[in-house]
Amino acid sequence: MLRIPPAADDAAMSEAAELLRVFNAEYDDDCPDTGWLAARFAELVTAGDTVVYLWGEPAHGFGLVRLRPSYYEDALEAYLAELYVAPDRRGGGEGRALLRAIMADARARGAVYMDLTTTNVDRAAVALYESVGFDRHERSGPGVTSYYFEIDL
Amino acid sequence: MLRIPPAADDAAMSEAAELLRVFNAEYDDDCPDTGWLAARFAELVTAGDTVVYLWGEPAHGFGLVRLRPSYYEDALEAYLAELYVAPDRRGGGEGRALLRAIMADARARGAVYMDLTTTNVDRAAVALYESVGFDRHERSGPGVTSYYFEIDL
Repeated sequence: MLRIPPAADDAAMSEAAELLRVFNAEYDDDCPDTGWLAARFAELVTAGDTVVYLWGEPAHGFGLVRLRPSYYEDALEAYLAELYVAPDRRGGGEGRALLRAIMADARARGAVYMDLTTTNVDRAAVALYESVGFDRHERSGPGVTSYYFEIDL
Repeated sequence: MLRIPPAADDAAMSEAAELLRVFNAEYDDDCPDTGWLAARFAELVTAGDTVVYLWGEPAHGFGLVRLRPSYYEDALEAYLAELYVAPDRRGGGEGRALLRAIMADARARGAVYMDLTTTNVDRAAVALYESVGFDRHERSGPGVTSYYFEIDL
């Protein structure tokens, strides 16, 4: 079910861009023009630090990973920037299957670590990530919660 | 007070590696050999996606930023991976000054966004980031807290 399209696959880049637009619309978040997004995806996939994942054909799921060298070991680290399953396909384990497939692919590319952010409001996402083994408690144990901070420069 | 050493400055890369070692020791966290770290810093600074910052001479503060192209706009995004001030220099505003200098440098390099992670246990860090304008509440407002999840692959 997992597809990992090459940068030159314009139709696949457009599918991914459209799913990201729909995902953002679900939360009333702004999203760039899908034509611009599809071209940007192609550019970043070509540069090699980005992997676009599609789930199903036509796609009803989508993921995006950013890779970079770790400075703690001679390996890559992966940031799961997007993970989306269409609302009418949720609750059947497809999100978990997509996530596990993405994790396996990142590992095969040389990543030894993955991180992501979500919020206390998206309980389904929190439950999914915890069920797969993601930890927001750091090494220090369950009394410690990791916060994620962001700012516009 | 801010120094941004080039990759070829072996002494500066070693200073940064030593401060990271001391920082990790403060939390009983593992840290790679400082010789390996200094060489890795030089490699990543050369590759262009990493900036090492030193504060004071000899340095008693240290920062490390990772840069990458955003997929939401034609700009860079910056991840503040490390920010450290020696214990005996804390409480005098140096962390804030170092953070502000790093943010200004990241902006000058084309970054429009910065993110970082910390925990509920490090109250001084949380207070510092909030005082400078970092937000852990996302667009949705104060009822929403961003969580950061991580996993070994």
